Amino acid sequence: MAKSPENEHPLKAFGWAARDSSGVLSPFKFSRRETGEKDVQIKIMYCGICHSDLHYLINQRGNAKYPLVPGHEIAGVVTEVGSEVQMYKVGDKVGVGCMVGACRSCDYCTQNLENHCPKIILTYNHTYYDGTRTYGGYSNFIVVDEHFVLRIPNDLPLDAAAPLLCSGISTYSPLIFYGLNKPGMHVGVVGLGGLGHVAVKMAKAFGVKVTVISTSPNKKEEAIEVLGADSFLVSRNPDEMQAAMGTMDGIIDTVSAVHPLLPLIGLMKCNGKLVMLGSPKALELPVMPLLMGRKMIVGSAIGGIKETQEMIDFAAKHNIIPLVEVIPIDYVNTAMERLEKADVKYRFVIDIGNTLKAA
Amino acid sequence: MAKSPENEHPLKAFGWAARDSSGVLSPFKFSRRETGEKDVQIKIMYCGICHSDLHYLINQRGNAKYPLVPGHEIAGVVTEVGSEVQMYKVGDKVGVGCMVGACRSCDYCTQNLENHCPKIILTYNHTYYDGTRTYGGYSNFIVVDEHFVLRIPNDLPLDAAAPLLCSGISTYSPLIFYGLNKPGMHVGVVGLGGLGHVAVKMAKAFGVKVTVISTSPNKKEEAIEVLGADSFLVSRNPDEMQAAMGTMDGIIDTVSAVHPLLPLIGLMKCNGKLVMLGSPKALELPVMPLLMGRKMIVGSAIGGIKETQEMIDFAAKHNIIPLVEVIPIDYVNTAMERLEKADVKYRFVIDIGNTLKAA
Repeated sequence: MAKSPENEHPLKAFGWAARDSSGVLSPFKFSRRETGEKDVQIKIMYCGICHSDLHYLINQRGNAKYPLVPGHEIAGVVTEVGSEVQMYKVGDKVGVGCMVGACRSCDYCTQNLENHCPKIILTYNHTYYDGTRTYGGYSNFIVVDEHFVLRIPNDLPLDAAAPLLCSGISTYSPLIFYGLNKPGMHVGVVGLGGLGHVAVKMAKAFGVKVTVISTSPNKKEEAIEVLGADSFLVSRNPDEMQAAMGTMDGIIDTVSAVHPLLPLIGLMKCNGKLVMLGSPKALELPVMPLLMGRKMIVGSAIGGIKETQEMIDFAAKHNIIPLVEVIPIDYVNTAMERLEKADVKYRFVIDIGNTLKAA
Repeated sequence: MAKSPENEHPLKAFGWAARDSSGVLSPFKFSRRETGEKDVQIKIMYCGICHSDLHYLINQRGNAKYPLVPGHEIAGVVTEVGSEVQMYKVGDKVGVGCMVGACRSCDYCTQNLENHCPKIILTYNHTYYDGTRTYGGYSNFIVVDEHFVLRIPNDLPLDAAAPLLCSGISTYSPLIFYGLNKPGMHVGVVGLGGLGHVAVKMAKAFGVKVTVISTSPNKKEEAIEVLGADSFLVSRNPDEMQAAMGTMDGIIDTVSAVHPLLPLIGLMKCNGKLVMLGSPKALELPVMPLLMGRKMIVGSAIGGIKETQEMIDFAAKHNIIPLVEVIPIDYVNTAMERLEKADVKYRFVIDIGNTLKAA
């Protein structure tokens, strides 16, 4: 019998997959490997919907391989561990983020930056060591090397913890790496979506003054009263923008649409750091304003495993709980349509445990 | 009698000025203030021609005020000091760079970053405290507050020292600030002009491996044999570029023309820093490659006075001597034409002391 997703491994699995660049998800039977010596088998309870899931589903980057099971914000419970697993036992609450493998020996891996390993294996739409496709968390269970498994503390609810695996580390890591985590600093957050609302909470937990920068004045009340931002700037209001020029130590820019950088550069003090987390196509870079203030435009993408665990523990300690809309799997195609219109506060999380049934 | 450049101050001065955005320079009589208590009066011996002089002359940035005497790479000899001057005495070899004033009390000034002071006074085309225009170094002498005067060690020739005041500090400061000065690092230098050739020498003095990146293969021999670069990459050669991908810790980009950033970002390792020193109009910024490698695009412009003195002392110690073509003042308009075509190795320096005569 020819190898197929359904029989290439011994364990029967099911989930929802897209079959083509229409991106429409529907039930899908496949298989997963047996729990190896260093593996942890995880019953998936919740999986967050990251904006990049949508990019992959519709093959926006041209590298989608169908059938494609997305999902890299996975929270669940350990159901089996291999004989050499040291960190986890059956019943533990755990998570899996964007990666399930890396070489463990290169310069990046040895610095705990597996996210920059040239041999990184992503949680879905990638090829595992054994040559088979990786399938993500819109599925009933997953088998992962324990090194790439994160512990979720008991005081974090599993549904809200799921988005931390991607949006949490994506915001926490640059705040630390670029030194924007010093109490009393002033940090702007552009875009109030899945990443942006977590950025506000993370920065506040560090004791930083946070200003949300948005095109839409009707997000102001919620930004301040619900998310805890200190102030709110309407980017289309020239007077407000002018008054805030040169006041920020850095800006976390989560916007994936094309947008002007010049006003954001202007909002920063000298030595300010504009951290790009979204993935717009090419933007216009004004060079002279960077020179004059020794300013920086920098990128960041998730973080290593060690830092991801630190982030989760930090989130638990500081009660950083993403605001999520929990949905059944049957709703996932509608959720994708709403996500495309930014119609979600602030992250969809699929209730896998209660709603995903074998086809 | 109405105030004019010629009579607004007591001391008669002369130089060459542009009268309009044709940028053509011709002899010009003006005046300078008497040597104040904290001032140093300097007989100008040499003045480098910076590319930004040309920008100002032809009013490329729209803020030129005519008559305009350019020049901010000034080297000369002290001829008079004020009663409170502590650091200099008559006969000392000194220099003046891009600034002649700053508030001395703001957050930037107190951190020795006068170059970022909002009240900075530039050496020319700016307004001094007394409301009069500042005139630069294409002139016979200048009077400057001692804080903004640099000491030129005896072992540095005055003609070659002049360009250090701008191109020296412009390259030294970012190599240090962005941590690209660690022995064994690999730094690229894009553009082999006034800034670029000094960047190569500075980086080599720090013990860094230097690769010159240029569109023009016929600069290779000189880059390696004369300037001391370790290797040379022809940016139009895809094979050479591909082989060098991901090998550099940082790049010093001195090009003022519009050019693509994507290949430069690709040449860098993760955490690489692309330092922009030129001032092209807007460039296209590819965002995703920045994210994936946590890379940075950063700006830098000159440096503070303390660091400028450190740079000059470092240059003297490591024999970093800019390569200059010394010209008489009568040649300055031709030099500007050649500069526009990048036809100079590598910096024009005007021999003010021997060739500038009173009109």
